[in-house]
Amino acid sequence: MDKVSTRDAAVALDAADILAPLRGEFTLPDGVIYLDGNSLGALPKRTAARVQQTIEGEWGQGLIRSWNDADWIGLAHGIGDAIAELIGARPGEVSVGDSTSVNLFKVLSAATALQKAGAPSRTAIVSERSNFPTDLYIAESIAAASGLKLCLVEADDLADQLNSDVSVLMLTHVNYRSGRRHDMAATSRLAHAAGALVVWDLAHSAGALPVDLHGADADFAVGCGYKYLNGGPGAPAFVWAHPRHTGRMDREGLRQPLSGWLGHAAPFDFTPSYRPAAGIGRFVCGTPPIVAMRALQCGLEVFSEAKVKGGMDALRVKSMALTDLFIERVEQRCAGRGLELVTPRDRAERGSQVSFAHADGYPIMQALIERGVIGDFRAGHAESGEANLLRFGFAPLYTRFVDAWDAAEALADVLESGLWREPRFGRRAAVT
Amino acid sequence: MDKVSTRDAAVALDAADILAPLRGEFTLPDGVIYLDGNSLGALPKRTAARVQQTIEGEWGQGLIRSWNDADWIGLAHGIGDAIAELIGARPGEVSVGDSTSVNLFKVLSAATALQKAGAPSRTAIVSERSNFPTDLYIAESIAAASGLKLCLVEADDLADQLNSDVSVLMLTHVNYRSGRRHDMAATSRLAHAAGALVVWDLAHSAGALPVDLHGADADFAVGCGYKYLNGGPGAPAFVWAHPRHTGRMDREGLRQPLSGWLGHAAPFDFTPSYRPAAGIGRFVCGTPPIVAMRALQCGLEVFSEAKVKGGMDALRVKSMALTDLFIERVEQRCAGRGLELVTPRDRAERGSQVSFAHADGYPIMQALIERGVIGDFRAGHAESGEANLLRFGFAPLYTRFVDAWDAAEALADVLESGLWREPRFGRRAAVT
Repeated sequence: MDKVSTRDAAVALDAADILAPLRGEFTLPDGVIYLDGNSLGALPKRTAARVQQTIEGEWGQGLIRSWNDADWIGLAHGIGDAIAELIGARPGEVSVGDSTSVNLFKVLSAATALQKAGAPSRTAIVSERSNFPTDLYIAESIAAASGLKLCLVEADDLADQLNSDVSVLMLTHVNYRSGRRHDMAATSRLAHAAGALVVWDLAHSAGALPVDLHGADADFAVGCGYKYLNGGPGAPAFVWAHPRHTGRMDREGLRQPLSGWLGHAAPFDFTPSYRPAAGIGRFVCGTPPIVAMRALQCGLEVFSEAKVKGGMDALRVKSMALTDLFIERVEQRCAGRGLELVTPRDRAERGSQVSFAHADGYPIMQALIERGVIGDFRAGHAESGEANLLRFGFAPLYTRFVDAWDAAEALADVLESGLWREPRFGRRAAVT
Repeated sequence: MDKVSTRDAAVALDAADILAPLRGEFTLPDGVIYLDGNSLGALPKRTAARVQQTIEGEWGQGLIRSWNDADWIGLAHGIGDAIAELIGARPGEVSVGDSTSVNLFKVLSAATALQKAGAPSRTAIVSERSNFPTDLYIAESIAAASGLKLCLVEADDLADQLNSDVSVLMLTHVNYRSGRRHDMAATSRLAHAAGALVVWDLAHSAGALPVDLHGADADFAVGCGYKYLNGGPGAPAFVWAHPRHTGRMDREGLRQPLSGWLGHAAPFDFTPSYRPAAGIGRFVCGTPPIVAMRALQCGLEVFSEAKVKGGMDALRVKSMALTDLFIERVEQRCAGRGLELVTPRDRAERGSQVSFAHADGYPIMQALIERGVIGDFRAGHAESGEANLLRFGFAPLYTRFVDAWDAAEALADVLESGLWREPRFGRRAAVT
């Protein structure tokens, strides 16, 4: 794509964009440019009516009968199949429910247990120091309980850490701060060469860019329903395990520890002893949140609409064009204002967000939000050299080129005018 | 209450019932007598509009800002406070989120860890053989991981099992099959006398009858949002811990293992190491399911309406009158038809459901449902001497005396007519 040097050129890109009509699938507030879909995705127009029908029809009128009549019991796997299409998994391999944190606990427990059974000398869980904290906290808990050590390293040092001591490598595919994307296939290959298993958190990649779990020969994955999948605040998360592992768990009796009744091979037999379901079914735990599952299902249906327009590959092309445009414009319009690009310039290393470091990121973002551009702020930790960040997510389903243009202009205005220095925006510094 | 010997007398009871208007708070389908609120509670009328507002207003228009502007971030504890009122806990002691199974994993892990630290010679988790399976499966998992044994005994033998070997006694307050209620205070006292901690599952008691966790000096509790609390299918569950334990966990660094980011003392500092929040806050894990939380909040508001009419105490009186009436009428009208009352006749030992054993319970319940009376069937396990059960839940917020009367009549008709023997109702026998 040539550089976009006028707002009219950005408008023209939207007019020519085959994906542009998908924005019409969403409700977005007037007067707002929403660049925080990496934190909470926008509301699909179909969701409200569908949830209403689930509440008034299926719950209110159908009552308990809807577990069968409305196939509530099949939702965890039905929605899982829709997610599987986006992440390079096969039908029947993905289950939906619980939170990302809980699902991470399941897969990381399963992965470390598999290694303990087959390679007990491996004592380390390795992850990235700036991985999303919940991932690190869950890993810390599992490491403490199972006598493993948790080794946190910088992304650039990962390859050096993958040795015969490593049980599991646990990474988030796209870093929540920097927007940097790991090469899933290459990293999985390195981990496997060292004898480690790999757990991928797809929170910032499922629905944002093409993911190919089988192509990368990954071992386990989890992901989030409320970011790029647009499932609503706190939407159910998902979990995937390579069939070679669920099969091995069958033979060797290995389990994930959250052995709730709906992960039983025959839950309605109500037997007193647990017998895990085959395949991914054993990663289901308690009764699934039906109303929330219906909302997530609506989010995934929008991806079905996108499929005929090129699907995730087309969305990725748009995402790169949007983030390129935003980076270029911000760097041109805000030069000398203290912003530093943190997200990789190399498209292959980029997710679907753009982060700029600025010491006064907090008040700048507050002023920008007042101007109608919603991104977010992530505080850095001074002691680990982390910067304060302005984050901008570009969900390619509903973000326009003109939004990227206008957001850059607004940021330039905020910085030039010094608006952000007004006391009402606060002065929150890095966390120390 | 005198025996109710005519339908008109039942109608008169409803007319005189100060709680009767609460039924108007619910949507119930025409032509149905719903006696399965112990499995899935009915839909409060206010829920659909509130959820709509949460979806279209808070999510659609407010987007990420609603975490603060609509206090999404405070919901887990705000709804927890509403539940606390119903179960004899104090404000700030209850948190809402995740499923009952997941919450049970948290508290049972915490309880066994506390005992391991203070009384490492204790090696048994004791529970009731006919406890709800998910409780047993979770206990089985924790026992296996921590080198404990899981001892399942009959309810009548519990007292004999409480010795110096017991780490934790884990019970469901009201048994899901029989509707038999444990004496929470007496049982907790026995357990404590033996040096054990007690974990109570309130799935069939929260909202069904008065619960007094502090009065009973209980240690930990979990419960379900979608049964008597009417929070919707798969509604978030809740968790309570006595402050003496959360305090001890502070001092000794003990944790529950599902250490997700929202259980951190300062989640938005995004520090790489976990530091548990004070009190019940450390039992929160991942991002809470906001849409589902709003629905649960509506269910709890109906209990606020009930408060001015006597609250849980008044609901308990009605529940006992309803179940008395149903038992009397069924035994009178269905004598000699093979039904056997499984629920205790003694009110003090009864929850808010009535179960009858019948070998052909499955086709009988199917025929009854076709007649518009919705209860449910729970298969027994022949090898453990369990019977096939017909279950009838009497949620006192919305069940009328005339419903109890009419349901007994319908059951009598089904049994007398032999309708249930028609092949379309099936012949499902006990699970063996």
